[in-house]
Amino acid sequence: MKFTVKQIALLLNGEVKGDESLTVSQLAKIEEGKAGDISFLSNEKYEPYLYTTQASAVIVGRTFEPRKSYTTTLIVVENPYIAFTQLLEEYQKLLEASKVGVEQPSFVGEGTMIGERIYQGAFSYIGKNCKIGKNVKIYPQAYIGDNVIIGDNTILYAGVKIYANCIIGNDCVIHSGVIVGSDGFGFAPQADGTYKTIPQLGNVILEDNVSIGSNSTIDCATMGSTIIRKGAKIDNLVQIAHNVEVGENTVIAAQTGVAGSTKIGKNCVIGGQVGINGHITIADGTKAGGKAGITKTVKKPGTSLNGNPAFEINDYLRSMAVLRKLPALEKQVKALEEQFLELQQQGVLV
Amino acid sequence: MKFTVKQIALLLNGEVKGDESLTVSQLAKIEEGKAGDISFLSNEKYEPYLYTTQASAVIVGRTFEPRKSYTTTLIVVENPYIAFTQLLEEYQKLLEASKVGVEQPSFVGEGTMIGERIYQGAFSYIGKNCKIGKNVKIYPQAYIGDNVIIGDNTILYAGVKIYANCIIGNDCVIHSGVIVGSDGFGFAPQADGTYKTIPQLGNVILEDNVSIGSNSTIDCATMGSTIIRKGAKIDNLVQIAHNVEVGENTVIAAQTGVAGSTKIGKNCVIGGQVGINGHITIADGTKAGGKAGITKTVKKPGTSLNGNPAFEINDYLRSMAVLRKLPALEKQVKALEEQFLELQQQGVLV
Amino acid sequence: MKFTVKQIALLLNGEVKGDESLTVSQLAKIEEGKAGDISFLSNEKYEPYLYTTQASAVIVGRTFEPRKSYTTTLIVVENPYIAFTQLLEEYQKLLEASKVGVEQPSFVGEGTMIGERIYQGAFSYIGKNCKIGKNVKIYPQAYIGDNVIIGDNTILYAGVKIYANCIIGNDCVIHSGVIVGSDGFGFAPQADGTYKTIPQLGNVILEDNVSIGSNSTIDCATMGSTIIRKGAKIDNLVQIAHNVEVGENTVIAAQTGVAGSTKIGKNCVIGGQVGINGHITIADGTKAGGKAGITKTVKKPGTSLNGNPAFEINDYLRSMAVLRKLPALEKQVKALEEQFLELQQQGVLV
Repeated sequence: MKFTVKQIALLLNGEVKGDESLTVSQLAKIEEGKAGDISFLSNEKYEPYLYTTQASAVIVGRTFEPRKSYTTTLIVVENPYIAFTQLLEEYQKLLEASKVGVEQPSFVGEGTMIGERIYQGAFSYIGKNCKIGKNVKIYPQAYIGDNVIIGDNTILYAGVKIYANCIIGNDCVIHSGVIVGSDGFGFAPQADGTYKTIPQLGNVILEDNVSIGSNSTIDCATMGSTIIRKGAKIDNLVQIAHNVEVGENTVIAAQTGVAGSTKIGKNCVIGGQVGINGHITIADGTKAGGKAGITKTVKKPGTSLNGNPAFEINDYLRSMAVLRKLPALEKQVKALEEQFLELQQQGVLV
Repeated sequence: MKFTVKQIALLLNGEVKGDESLTVSQLAKIEEGKAGDISFLSNEKYEPYLYTTQASAVIVGRTFEPRKSYTTTLIVVENPYIAFTQLLEEYQKLLEASKVGVEQPSFVGEGTMIGERIYQGAFSYIGKNCKIGKNVKIYPQAYIGDNVIIGDNTILYAGVKIYANCIIGNDCVIHSGVIVGSDGFGFAPQADGTYKTIPQLGNVILEDNVSIGSNSTIDCATMGSTIIRKGAKIDNLVQIAHNVEVGENTVIAAQTGVAGSTKIGKNCVIGGQVGINGHITIADGTKAGGKAGITKTVKKPGTSLNGNPAFEINDYLRSMAVLRKLPALEKQVKALEEQFLELQQQGVLV
Repeated sequence: MKFTVKQIALLLNGEVKGDESLTVSQLAKIEEGKAGDISFLSNEKYEPYLYTTQASAVIVGRTFEPRKSYTTTLIVVENPYIAFTQLLEEYQKLLEASKVGVEQPSFVGEGTMIGERIYQGAFSYIGKNCKIGKNVKIYPQAYIGDNVIIGDNTILYAGVKIYANCIIGNDCVIHSGVIVGSDGFGFAPQADGTYKTIPQLGNVILEDNVSIGSNSTIDCATMGSTIIRKGAKIDNLVQIAHNVEVGENTVIAAQTGVAGSTKIGKNCVIGGQVGINGHITIADGTKAGGKAGITKTVKKPGTSLNGNPAFEINDYLRSMAVLRKLPALEKQVKALEEQFLELQQQGVLV
C-alpha cells in the first residue's frame, strides 16, 4: 500500500513542507529511513538524523526549527509522537482488514453459528455447537473445541487451541501457540504412592479486550471458571493455573506463573518470571519486580514487592545491597571477635 | 446430558431427602449453584450456603444436621467429597467417550497400524510405520512422526507434536502444545567461535499413566532415551532436556526445567519454576520448593530443599529470615565497631 | 537402513578386527549395545563394557590394547569419538534426506515461490508472496505467514508458526511449537487505568545457521527488526521480546527470557531460567549462570555473572557461602553485643 505525503498530512491534520506528491509505503525509525519510508522526530536527541535521513518524509512538531539543511519532506503536526502512533494504528487496521473469507480445507462442526465478515484460515477447526461473533479472525491451524463462545472482533492467531466449553469475549487478541482451557494440575496422592487424576470440569472465561501472548497456557477450573477480567494483558509463556482470577487491566510479563486458586486484583503490574503461590490474594495495584516469588497474600493495595520470598521493595533493595557486602560483613564480625578475645587476654574483660 | 436426582443417588449409593424427580445437568460449587446444578457440602465452613443455594441438589454426609430451612434436595452419603469426586469422574468418562471416529481430512502414513475405537480429529497427522493402540484419542492438528508407538487409551489433545521414533505408553494424557522428542540442545564449540550441531538420534519414552501439561517440552536423548517413568505427572511449560530420567510417580509443577542427563528419583515433588542442573542425581522422595535452584546431587531420600543454590529447607528458612534483617545487622556491626574505637580512644584497648 | 561393518570402516577410514560382513542398523551406548548396534569406546572408564557388550561392532582407538577377551567386532580408527560423531552426522543426513515432496492437503498462497527439493508436509500453510529456498523442509501443520522469506536448507518442524513479513536465513533449524514474529508486549497506560495497544509493525530476522528450540517465542519489533545473528543457538521455551538483538554465536539455555530492546553481544553463554532486563546491553562473551537476573548493562567483555540482581561470579559465590551461615553470623553479633553490655555494666565502658 502506497500513500502520498499529502494523503498522510490530511489524515494527521498536518502541514507539508516539501514535495507533497512523494509516495511512502513503510514506517521506519529516523536513523534507518530509506526512500519510500516515513519516520518521525520527537526526541531532540535524534535531531541530527533529520539532516542525514534517506526517509522520504519525517513528521515533526510545530516548534521544531531546523538548524541545518535537509533533503526529506516534513509533515508538521502538534505532537509528532502521537501522530506517528495514529499512523501505526491506521496501518495496522488496513493490514488486518485484508484477511476475510474462508480458506479450504477448514472444519466446522454441527450446530455451530458463525458471524459475518469472519476470516477462517485453512486447517482451522471449529467444533460442535460453537458461537463465533462477527469480524472474528481465526488463523490457520487454530482449534476451537465444542461449545465454545467467541465474541466480536476477536483474533485467534495461527495454532491457538481453545478447549471445549471456554468463553472468549469481544476484542480479544490471542497469539499463536496459546492454550486456553487445558486441564488443571490436580492429582490426589494414593496410599501406594501413585496419583489419581482429579477431573477438571470447569472452563476458562476471557472477558473483553484481553490479550494473551504466544505459547501462554491458561488451565480450566476444576469446577467453575478460571477468569481473566476485561482489559488484562498477558505476555508470552505465562502459566495461569486452574481457578485463578486475574483482575481488570492487570498486566503480567513473560514467563510468570500463577498457581491454583489465586486471585490477582485489578490494575496490578507483575514483572517477568515472577512466581505467585496458590490460594492467595493479591491486592489491587500491586507491583511485583521481575523474578519475585510471592508466597503470601498481599493485603495493602498498591504494594511494591521484590525478592523471593517477596517483601516490600525498599526493604528488598536495602537487603540486596548488604547481600553483596556479606563477605566483608563476616570479616568485620570476625575482627570484632578477635578484638574481644584480646580484651579478655588483657584481663579487661573477665 | 441430564440425570434425575434419583439416578445420581443410585450411582452414589445415597439416600434422597426431597424431590427425587428433579433433573440436574451441571456440577457446581455450593456458593455458585443455580437451578439444574448439583453440588456438595463437605467442609462445615460452607454450611451457610446450604440454606441459600439455588442448586437443585446437594450431596451431604450422614452426620449432617440442618440447623435452618433450605429449598434444595439433599442426597445423603457416607463421604460427600468422595461421592462428588466419583460423580466428576463418571461425568468425565461420558464426555470423553463421546469422541470416536475419524474426521476428514486427516493423514495416515504407509505401514501404520491403528487400534479399534480410535478418535482421529481433522488435520491430525500420523506418519509411517506407527503403531497406535485402541481407544486412543488424537485430537485435531496433533502430529505423530514416523515409527512412533502409542499405547491403549492414551489421549493426545489438539496440536500435540510427537517426533519420530518416540514411544508413548498406555493411559497417558498429553495436553495441547506439548512437544515430545525435539532435539536436545547439543552443540560443540569450534575453534572459530561457531558451534557444530551434535546430532540427537535417541528418542523419548513415556511409560504408562504419564500426564504432561500444555506446552511442555521433552527433548530426545543424544543416544538412547529420555525417560518419563510410569505415573509421573508433569505440569505446563516444563522443560525436560535430553537424556533426563524422571522417576515413577514424581510430580513436577509448572515452568520447572531439568537440564541434560539428570536423573530424578521416584515419588519426588518438585515445585514450580525450579531449575535442576545437568548431570546430577536427585534421590527418591526429594521435595523442592518453588523457584529452588538445585545445583548438586541430592543423595538422601526424602530431603526437602529450597533456595538458589538450594539447601535443606529449615536452614533455608532461617537464612531467609535473617536476609530481611540484613540492613539492621549491618548497623549493629557498625555500632559495635564504633564502640570499639571508643574503647581504643579511651586507652582501654591498645 | 543396514550397513556392513566393512562399509562403515571404509567411511571412517578404519581397520576391521573381526567379522567385517556383520550388519549394523543402530547407534548405541557401549553399556546398552545389542546385536545389530554399533558403539564406540573413547573414555577408558567405559573399557569394562567392551568385554561384555552385545553390540555387533565397537569403534576403538589405535592405541587401545584389549586386556580380556571380547565377542564384538572392532573398527580401529585414529580418534573413536570423532569417528562416531561423523557416523552420527552421516546417519542424520540419511534420515533427513528421506523427507522430500509435497503431501496433500497443504496450502500455498498466491505469488509464493518455492525452491527445488522441498518437503512440504500435510496441513502446512504457506501464505502469499513468500519466497522459500531450496531443500527446505516444512513439516506438517507448520504455518508461514504472508511475505515471509526462508533461505536454503532450513528446517521448520511440525507446528512452527512464522508470522507475516519475517525473514529466516539459510541452514536454520526451528523446532516444533516455536513462534516467530508474534506481537511485542507493548501497551500504553491510559488515564482510566486501561491499556491501549501499541501496534507492533516490525518483523523478526533470523540470520544463517540459527537454531531455535521447541516452544520458544520471538516477538516482532515495534518498528524495525528483532534480530538473531548468525550461528546463535537458542534452547526450548526461551522468550525473546520485541527489538532484542542476540549476537553471533551466542548460546541461550532453556526458559531464559530477554526483555524488550536489549542487545546481547556475540559469543555469550547464557544459562537456563536467566532473566535479562529490557533496554540494556550485554558485552561480548558474557557468561551468566542459571537463574541469574541481569538488571544492568554489562560493559566488560567476558564478564561472568550470577545471582539476582546478578553480580560478578566470584563475589556471588562468596556472598552465597555467607548466606547459608547468616543465622550463625546473627548469633555472633548478638553475643558481641551482650559482651559489650557486660563491659558497660562492669564500668569499663562509659
